[in-house]
Amino acid sequence: MRTIDWADGAIEIIDQTALPGELRILKLTEVADLVAAIRSLAVRGAPALGVAGAFGVALAARQFTGDERGLADAVHAVEHARPTAVNLARGARRVAALIPAGPEAVLAEACAVRDEEIAASAAMAILGADLMVELCGERPRLLTHCNTGGLAAVTGGTALGVVTELHRRGALAGVIASETRPLLQGARLTAWELGEAGIDFRVAVDSAGPFLLARGEADAVILGADRICANGDVINKIGSYAHALGARRAGLPFVVVAPESTVDLETPDGDAVEIEDRGAAEITGYSHAVNPAFDVTPHDLVTAIVTDQRVIRLDRGEKL
Amino acid sequence: MRTIDWADGAIEIIDQTALPGELRILKLTEVADLVAAIRSLAVRGAPALGVAGAFGVALAARQFTGDERGLADAVHAVEHARPTAVNLARGARRVAALIPAGPEAVLAEACAVRDEEIAASAAMAILGADLMVELCGERPRLLTHCNTGGLAAVTGGTALGVVTELHRRGALAGVIASETRPLLQGARLTAWELGEAGIDFRVAVDSAGPFLLARGEADAVILGADRICANGDVINKIGSYAHALGARRAGLPFVVVAPESTVDLETPDGDAVEIEDRGAAEITGYSHAVNPAFDVTPHDLVTAIVTDQRVIRLDRGEKL
Repeated sequence: MRTIDWADGAIEIIDQTALPGELRILKLTEVADLVAAIRSLAVRGAPALGVAGAFGVALAARQFTGDERGLADAVHAVEHARPTAVNLARGARRVAALIPAGPEAVLAEACAVRDEEIAASAAMAILGADLMVELCGERPRLLTHCNTGGLAAVTGGTALGVVTELHRRGALAGVIASETRPLLQGARLTAWELGEAGIDFRVAVDSAGPFLLARGEADAVILGADRICANGDVINKIGSYAHALGARRAGLPFVVVAPESTVDLETPDGDAVEIEDRGAAEITGYSHAVNPAFDVTPHDLVTAIVTDQRVIRLDRGEKL
Repeated sequence: MRTIDWADGAIEIIDQTALPGELRILKLTEVADLVAAIRSLAVRGAPALGVAGAFGVALAARQFTGDERGLADAVHAVEHARPTAVNLARGARRVAALIPAGPEAVLAEACAVRDEEIAASAAMAILGADLMVELCGERPRLLTHCNTGGLAAVTGGTALGVVTELHRRGALAGVIASETRPLLQGARLTAWELGEAGIDFRVAVDSAGPFLLARGEADAVILGADRICANGDVINKIGSYAHALGARRAGLPFVVVAPESTVDLETPDGDAVEIEDRGAAEITGYSHAVNPAFDVTPHDLVTAIVTDQRVIRLDRGEKL
């Protein structure tokens, strides 16, 4: 099952706000509905957002045929539906470059983006699993944050794809999934995916992560990224930085898994990234909140970045 | 209003599981009810637990007059209702030493424990406020974790008492309260107390704390303790350690406020403390969880400890 796909002239997505209670498929036929789905996190995860951006432009090209202004506005709306993950704007822009060639060419390019993300997930799983065994020994116990499985991509996933690959090899000794407040992508989505895959896991509150590492309950932290800056700074779900601090203090590897489509050499460092604040409503009951959805993990805290094409050992001074 | 007190032969507590929705007073006339209230966190916070332990033994002395075995069992049940905060067992044992002198002597000693905690809160507020201005400048912006206000003591509180004192002096420029999963003592209790006191605040998810410090949104972290070990290691609510790591990386003070009754020179260090795991039920929906209620902040990450009698500058090599 694919998290996001194109079928019969519409975008189909698994509604991630309904999981784990219900596996609901949304069929989106208008750009405005896709933008709303992106904003509500019905579709989320950097690779999935890249595909959403691509299919969003494909949808726009059909919905606004002959309406140049309407099409430009729609493409802009898709590209800017959320600000932090680079994949969304990148997927949209790549596909929008084909608009002069017509809607079919646009759709073909969007399908290529999807297919490349599927292939990237498969490649990252192999490279990542090999690296984790190299770093941690034969049967790693891993701590992961947020959701980076098939739901964050099209199939497979990034960091959770590595976890699944280790399980497939019989080389996984345990997983702790942090719950990932405020929207519980860990406790809802990662737990659901691990359950579906038959992988034993434990859920922990986010703030327990560093202590669990200090107490020796995991051998490494592995997670995804929403944007990787040119200097190796990693933008990812709020809480990633705290886990990186915990890993560093415990002397454990902190590994980031993301496709090349998440590497953004045009962004020099974390300071240059707009961090989305999703407002007080997500933190129930209080009108005054500070709710950054992402944080910046400085590159010096990152052991390695695994993409679909390479392993960059930042701990050995390698550069992107 | 007192969080816990003795009235008409019973222990009265504010039921902290009902806040902020309802301000409900529980009247406890049997030791078993007090033990249940401690276990459910209807009464919580190290100083308040010390008073609960003291009044629990006073209640036991009345309930089991003439029943030596019943009394001993009741005292044991109170003392061990929760394992991590030193105050509970210490309060119970101190008062139990008066049992041979009869129930009235026991009650008088329990009231003395209560009165000392009230006085300690007042003293910590002054010492702590002075220190925060010394460390941060004239109008500090503070990040606090869990609940350390009047609800965690009898009145006043520990770290939040310092926040309130700074506000009283017109010397507080902002407060961020972390929500404190899984039971939301920050988002429920601290937010309620700050609101009652007319102090502006923002709530953040726990895992945002280190990033907010990195981004310069607070000048220091201030929080309480459930046990302070002889070497200065601090046992406190899960997430405290992550905030300490964030403060260290940001070069900001990490200040612990707790009465002398929380300082436990008989416990050499954090490794010697039993960390209560409160089970999966608190993390809704998953049968497999790891849920340590506390963590250990190693002494080298602590800038200073403020008690009701002294300021110990661990950052300057001072010892307990």
